[in-house]
Amino acid sequence: MAHEDSLPWTPDYDRYPCEVALAAAETADGFIRLLWQDGRSNSYDVFLLRENSPDELTIHQQSRELLISPLDIPDDLQAVAAHIDSAGALVVDWSTGEQSRYHPGWLRAHAFFEDGDNSEALPPVTSPQLWKAADLPEPPSYSGPQVLQEDAALLAWLESLSSYGISRLRGLPDQAGLLEQVVKRIGPIRESNFGRQYVLEIKDEPDSNAFTSDALLQHIDMPTRETPHGLQFLFCRTNTTTGGEGVYVDGFRIAEAIRDEAPDDFQALTQIPWIHNNRAKTSDYRAEAPAIGLDSQGKLREVRVTAWLRAPMKASLDNQRRAYRSIRTFTRYAQDPDFQMVFRYEPGDLLAFDNRRVLHGRRGYDASGGERFIEGIYADRDDLYSTIRVLRRNLVAAGSGSREFVDR
Amino acid sequence: MAHEDSLPWTPDYDRYPCEVALAAAETADGFIRLLWQDGRSNSYDVFLLRENSPDELTIHQQSRELLISPLDIPDDLQAVAAHIDSAGALVVDWSTGEQSRYHPGWLRAHAFFEDGDNSEALPPVTSPQLWKAADLPEPPSYSGPQVLQEDAALLAWLESLSSYGISRLRGLPDQAGLLEQVVKRIGPIRESNFGRQYVLEIKDEPDSNAFTSDALLQHIDMPTRETPHGLQFLFCRTNTTTGGEGVYVDGFRIAEAIRDEAPDDFQALTQIPWIHNNRAKTSDYRAEAPAIGLDSQGKLREVRVTAWLRAPMKASLDNQRRAYRSIRTFTRYAQDPDFQMVFRYEPGDLLAFDNRRVLHGRRGYDASGGERFIEGIYADRDDLYSTIRVLRRNLVAAGSGSREFVDR
Repeated sequence: MAHEDSLPWTPDYDRYPCEVALAAAETADGFIRLLWQDGRSNSYDVFLLRENSPDELTIHQQSRELLISPLDIPDDLQAVAAHIDSAGALVVDWSTGEQSRYHPGWLRAHAFFEDGDNSEALPPVTSPQLWKAADLPEPPSYSGPQVLQEDAALLAWLESLSSYGISRLRGLPDQAGLLEQVVKRIGPIRESNFGRQYVLEIKDEPDSNAFTSDALLQHIDMPTRETPHGLQFLFCRTNTTTGGEGVYVDGFRIAEAIRDEAPDDFQALTQIPWIHNNRAKTSDYRAEAPAIGLDSQGKLREVRVTAWLRAPMKASLDNQRRAYRSIRTFTRYAQDPDFQMVFRYEPGDLLAFDNRRVLHGRRGYDASGGERFIEGIYADRDDLYSTIRVLRRNLVAAGSGSREFVDR
Repeated sequence: MAHEDSLPWTPDYDRYPCEVALAAAETADGFIRLLWQDGRSNSYDVFLLRENSPDELTIHQQSRELLISPLDIPDDLQAVAAHIDSAGALVVDWSTGEQSRYHPGWLRAHAFFEDGDNSEALPPVTSPQLWKAADLPEPPSYSGPQVLQEDAALLAWLESLSSYGISRLRGLPDQAGLLEQVVKRIGPIRESNFGRQYVLEIKDEPDSNAFTSDALLQHIDMPTRETPHGLQFLFCRTNTTTGGEGVYVDGFRIAEAIRDEAPDDFQALTQIPWIHNNRAKTSDYRAEAPAIGLDSQGKLREVRVTAWLRAPMKASLDNQRRAYRSIRTFTRYAQDPDFQMVFRYEPGDLLAFDNRRVLHGRRGYDASGGERFIEGIYADRDDLYSTIRVLRRNLVAAGSGSREFVDR
């Protein structure tokens, strides 16, 4: 095939390996049909192709944002001719007199194949690895100092967080501001009514059960938001107390177990909305959502279970019954030691987890027997995924990443 | 009816006026049926009632969070007796030997009536008031200094923001940090990859078209996030340039117009997912969602249209065609002056809008002809709604709010 150099650039910063070459292009009324050398074919609507023409009048060279409005393209746009040039690129002549030239790797990556074998439109950044206690007795662990300094180490930690929903840094120094410094390697902090950063300590007038020394049932934080905070980070700077171990469960693994073993409960958990409500004196957050959220393809998107923020639902008696029965089933799984990862927070540990997938809880601790200083910060899934993509892109460009890191 | 004082407290901080008294309560297998003096009836599942028992062993007195786990309640819980006491409260004797006592106003507010006349489970904080240019030629405007000082003025401004999706403060001093101070009257800042606060200025290497002096088509910010930032605030501190007027449209009003006038396009806009992708060098955010998002009841939840962040969809040719045709229809409405509110940013103006409903844009401006200094900050809908609820609660308690402010 042609040299990469002679191909047009792509409308984004990703790399598109040319694994299969274009064989032919046919124009038709309102679309262009592409034939590939492996015998597959796909069609692009003319508006999609025109809008994504990688020329500098259509797409800004730095921001890679589109420069044209949809209405800059005439309603009756047609492709009057199309051919494959000597470098393997698609060249389209438009009815407006303009010409566009497309990278074959980019065309292949965005193709919707007529043979019906299409991967997801927006593949997950990593495949989720679901776990029970026996699969993952402790959080995967990485060197904190290394992650602070090396992009490849940062990427490995973030991929593990994305796959397992939980991952840990160890060996960090006891330093104020360090938690924020680590989280900013990923993206912006997501603040809450508990502040930019919070300390898990005992308050005289607690505005959450978290601020007591009591045991906490497995739960997510912020179920009262339309979209709860996606990531949580806990940095243990001191811990000489007895008890207080973290007790974590993979909410997605529990959801799959219920899908298999109690399908009626799974249906209730995914269909009947619960209301979660924060009832503090100075805030009143409310959100309505099923306990298990699925995406449009039926895949697990989130788990939203927090016993103590549950508000009464306003529902038919039948739905009340099904909802309460199913949430009791979920709770039974979450309290089953087979599903629980139990570990102690050691000084220097920074635990990261997906707050919308992995439910966290703790055993009670003896507040009189020592000191416990754990700082917490929230961030979001969007930033995790963006950072993984950019790190992969940069590491591939630097030659230190593998081909499987090429993101579409 | 009985004095408010003799009624049990409610499990949250809201007030529940006793407009209709309880007539009778019947226990049955797994539920309690309530008969009201206006002839209506509803049933509560025993688990819902038991979990929301407002006693101090079940609900924490300060945090108003539940103190019990679902599994602290036995599977075979029954209500063995129920009666209405002399104060009008419901008293339930449980099979565990415990007794609970419920406020009749609270029971009424959470009732799901058997006659089928049930308001929404989670009513909106305000009813949306949709607008075209003739309905709302300028943003509703409030006194900035007053809103900074008076809760009632703050509430009026926030209710207007919630209803119209856009509202403005005027007369604020040219002061650094003031924007954040105003937004913090509502809740936490929501940061982004553009920082905690940003300035709409011209950048040499713009990472967004916003940082040029070009005209901007009506759009939302952050369409590349799973849930885009809900609120945007723009504080104009200086403006001596020519042009650059804000051009805003009510995306919900456009959606309703399309629902009426082009139902096929409405279907495509609500069903076919678009991908929005930020393609900057240092970030790569992606999200997939239809252009118009509906909630589970078919009501408008969000509009997600940003021409220059649109990525190619991976979809059948038929869906590509329907999607591009419908987004062109949407754009045509957004460019119709009948739908556009056009106004100048004056120094001292602080504009607030719902980024997921009201699309913003601007006319191009002459960067050589003067100075333009506009600061921006994002926040979220959740915090707006929480703050409205708490302000209403406090103003009602202080006797300065009206009855219609009593939130359920």
